[in-house]
Amino acid sequence: MTGNNHIQLDSNGRLKHFLTTEGLSRQLLVEILDNAESFAGVAHRAVKKVPLLRGKTIVNLFFEPSTRTSTTFDLAANRLSADVVNVNLATSSTSKGESLLDTLHTLEAMHTDMFVVRHSSSGAAHFIAGHVAPHVSVINAGDGQHAHPTQAMLDMFTIRRHKRSFETLTVAIVGDIMHSRVARSDIHALKTLGVNDVRVVGPKTLMPADIESLGVRVFDNLDNALQQVDVIIMLRLQKERMLSASIPSESEYFRRYGLTQTRLRLAKPDAIVMHPGPINRGIEIESSVADSNQSVILQQVSHGIAIRMAVMAMTLGSLSGSLAKNDENPDN
Amino acid sequence: MTGNNHIQLDSNGRLKHFLTTEGLSRQLLVEILDNAESFAGVAHRAVKKVPLLRGKTIVNLFFEPSTRTSTTFDLAANRLSADVVNVNLATSSTSKGESLLDTLHTLEAMHTDMFVVRHSSSGAAHFIAGHVAPHVSVINAGDGQHAHPTQAMLDMFTIRRHKRSFETLTVAIVGDIMHSRVARSDIHALKTLGVNDVRVVGPKTLMPADIESLGVRVFDNLDNALQQVDVIIMLRLQKERMLSASIPSESEYFRRYGLTQTRLRLAKPDAIVMHPGPINRGIEIESSVADSNQSVILQQVSHGIAIRMAVMAMTLGSLSGSLAKNDENPDN
Amino acid sequence: MTGNNHIQLDSNGRLKHFLTTEGLSRQLLVEILDNAESFAGVAHRAVKKVPLLRGKTIVNLFFEPSTRTSTTFDLAANRLSADVVNVNLATSSTSKGESLLDTLHTLEAMHTDMFVVRHSSSGAAHFIAGHVAPHVSVINAGDGQHAHPTQAMLDMFTIRRHKRSFETLTVAIVGDIMHSRVARSDIHALKTLGVNDVRVVGPKTLMPADIESLGVRVFDNLDNALQQVDVIIMLRLQKERMLSASIPSESEYFRRYGLTQTRLRLAKPDAIVMHPGPINRGIEIESSVADSNQSVILQQVSHGIAIRMAVMAMTLGSLSGSLAKNDENPDN
Repeated sequence: MTGNNHIQLDSNGRLKHFLTTEGLSRQLLVEILDNAESFAGVAHRAVKKVPLLRGKTIVNLFFEPSTRTSTTFDLAANRLSADVVNVNLATSSTSKGESLLDTLHTLEAMHTDMFVVRHSSSGAAHFIAGHVAPHVSVINAGDGQHAHPTQAMLDMFTIRRHKRSFETLTVAIVGDIMHSRVARSDIHALKTLGVNDVRVVGPKTLMPADIESLGVRVFDNLDNALQQVDVIIMLRLQKERMLSASIPSESEYFRRYGLTQTRLRLAKPDAIVMHPGPINRGIEIESSVADSNQSVILQQVSHGIAIRMAVMAMTLGSLSGSLAKNDENPDN
Repeated sequence: MTGNNHIQLDSNGRLKHFLTTEGLSRQLLVEILDNAESFAGVAHRAVKKVPLLRGKTIVNLFFEPSTRTSTTFDLAANRLSADVVNVNLATSSTSKGESLLDTLHTLEAMHTDMFVVRHSSSGAAHFIAGHVAPHVSVINAGDGQHAHPTQAMLDMFTIRRHKRSFETLTVAIVGDIMHSRVARSDIHALKTLGVNDVRVVGPKTLMPADIESLGVRVFDNLDNALQQVDVIIMLRLQKERMLSASIPSESEYFRRYGLTQTRLRLAKPDAIVMHPGPINRGIEIESSVADSNQSVILQQVSHGIAIRMAVMAMTLGSLSGSLAKNDENPDN
Repeated sequence: MTGNNHIQLDSNGRLKHFLTTEGLSRQLLVEILDNAESFAGVAHRAVKKVPLLRGKTIVNLFFEPSTRTSTTFDLAANRLSADVVNVNLATSSTSKGESLLDTLHTLEAMHTDMFVVRHSSSGAAHFIAGHVAPHVSVINAGDGQHAHPTQAMLDMFTIRRHKRSFETLTVAIVGDIMHSRVARSDIHALKTLGVNDVRVVGPKTLMPADIESLGVRVFDNLDNALQQVDVIIMLRLQKERMLSASIPSESEYFRRYGLTQTRLRLAKPDAIVMHPGPINRGIEIESSVADSNQSVILQQVSHGIAIRMAVMAMTLGSLSGSLAKNDENPDN
């Protein structure tokens, strides 16, 4: 059992915390995808709720703001019938000088069941998972430049919906690889699920030195990288990188790494285009590509709710047996 | 079908979005009032909830802050058993440079059912309704100086509760007509419901040039305008207008347009006094008038919840048949 | 009936508002503790909810921010199945110049059932309780330097869980007595419940002149005060006091009034250590004492939810008969 699994899995090998895709077994990743497939159906019912987490309390601990991600976790929790508490850490006890651990232990003492953690420091979610009480699960909603595992799993879900099998795929990940927790979590998930040919593309200044050790091929020319790929994952370019010396200018970046209609033709005709959002039109991606039939960007958002429902239910141990028997019915 | 109805009604003539009172039929306005009458009873039950919108997700999109209005929409949604997501747009993706439409489409992809929109620009709710997915309804919670249709309908509801019929009424609307979305939406609703004599009163600098085209009579002397009226709708004077050159001073405004006990005696003895709130005591209205038996200002607030419940349930198509069969019962 | 009871109790002597522990009967305080004991069990169920306040609307009116306290009230309301509205008063109508009473009456008109009030001015909760409509209950979540009755009752609950009877106890309250609403509410509750020996300890500059009239003994030497005590209640030192002239310095304060392992040995061997949180490690309390077996600080947090559930249910008149018959069951 790797260091990550030691903390993520309980003694029966079941998911206790969800902190990173790194080190998790293929079987477990597939189990997450299969459970999410069941939950995806819930969104199309007249009543979009199941009572699986009724009476559970989920705390959103967002140290870094993210409306999009926090909203999808909120909705996932609502649709599982859990209660959600949003702790505004800017006005909370941490600003009164209380230590992070004291804040955590205080929240635990309120009989809360899960912390969804977003933090600008790599390792924050692991740190928290290492210190919570045994009854609490932690889900990493993005930590620094380290990991964003629910984003990676919604990406895998979206790929599986469009492509038969992972083994035969070629996937290109394009942009600021160095600072991207999405890239890192995607690479671990893709490799574990059997994707042989994962390509990372971006300016040399934004490419980590040791990235090839993850089993990927490095490109700095986008045209070369896109040849015959099945899946293109565009990364968001952080405005702050543009202001720093890392890249020359927005227009120069777009000229070299922007996904245009012309470039998209280098990929397979049925290639899909993904992006974690929010998108910068005209910087990472041409507007017409973002809105094209090959773009599955909005599907990713939808799938994000199903993935988060699956991971929440699994870590809280509420998915023994089939989902069917937990279905919403008039008595609940 | 007018331009407004084209977007507000579905192909069966049922309310799909609620953006403005302008152009809606008398029958439809009465249907809203009748449905609200049913919901008004819910507030007096031991359990103030009906399961009509159970499993529906409503997004509050308040680009302009308004605790009062957002709270009543929140409560209306709660009492219909819907889930509510408040999107804080100040810290959201729009601040990361994402376009409004991308934000909307992202929220839609989360399988949300309704956007309640408040925006400082006239036309914002129409724009959004013109671009949302077919399954999403939009309710205008106030857009710029254009419309505030739920406020107008709660005003109509309040008038109907106190007066027998709209046809015989005389109604005076007093204050800053030019900048008031409430005035505009009230005028459309009053005229459609058959009020013959609608009077608008205010300083010439705050009176739109073409207002008579809406079928109202213009006054600049409040004493003249109040003669024998049945209903007085006072408008809120925005502090920012007082700072601009539009009016001379608070005390001068009160002297000329403030509703005092003395002036109220010019109206019919059973005239009712309304105000959308929050009130500025001693500027638009004398304190004793706001607190008098003729004031129905707090009743307006109560009715606002019933009206919003009605409009939410109608636009989401959850009001086929009688409300009775959807009543809360021990199994739900 | 004292002035406080006149406003806190209804004509049948039942709790209507909960504003202060001062003046309430021993029987009523014990009733609160007994009801909280029933609710404490709810936290250990698989589904941590009871439907007692289903369809009730609770408004959190926090004029002074407090994540910890507002979160526990939120959770208490959730677990009673009430709907909660958080009114952000910084962006609300009060900032538009509306008076506090107009804001209250507006919220009442929305058919809300309870205001949970936190305010920096002593007497604010009493003022509000004196002006609300008959159907609304008010709970004081801390007003200025006056009272914090739910904190006091969770302290009493924690003491009762650890000690057999109040009558034989010796209790020391340590720190900034003058500015502490917790100290004041604790003293009233302890005396009413029969604690004979209540000691208050702190710098003379932070000790109210007339404190002995409450039936307590005053110390300025901590070592003397701790001799053979059963319960030590440490108060939080507000940073702003440290900046003022009231105390010399943090380290000097800790040297004289900080609770260390060495000092703790002066108390009885089974003495418990309490603190309302958030704690300042190394200022009021040595880190090892806060984390020791004698510390019950996190238990206090847990008990806070049970106490708040009890007080909410009692003031809304939902606790006639046994809790058992209101238990969660599959039909609810």
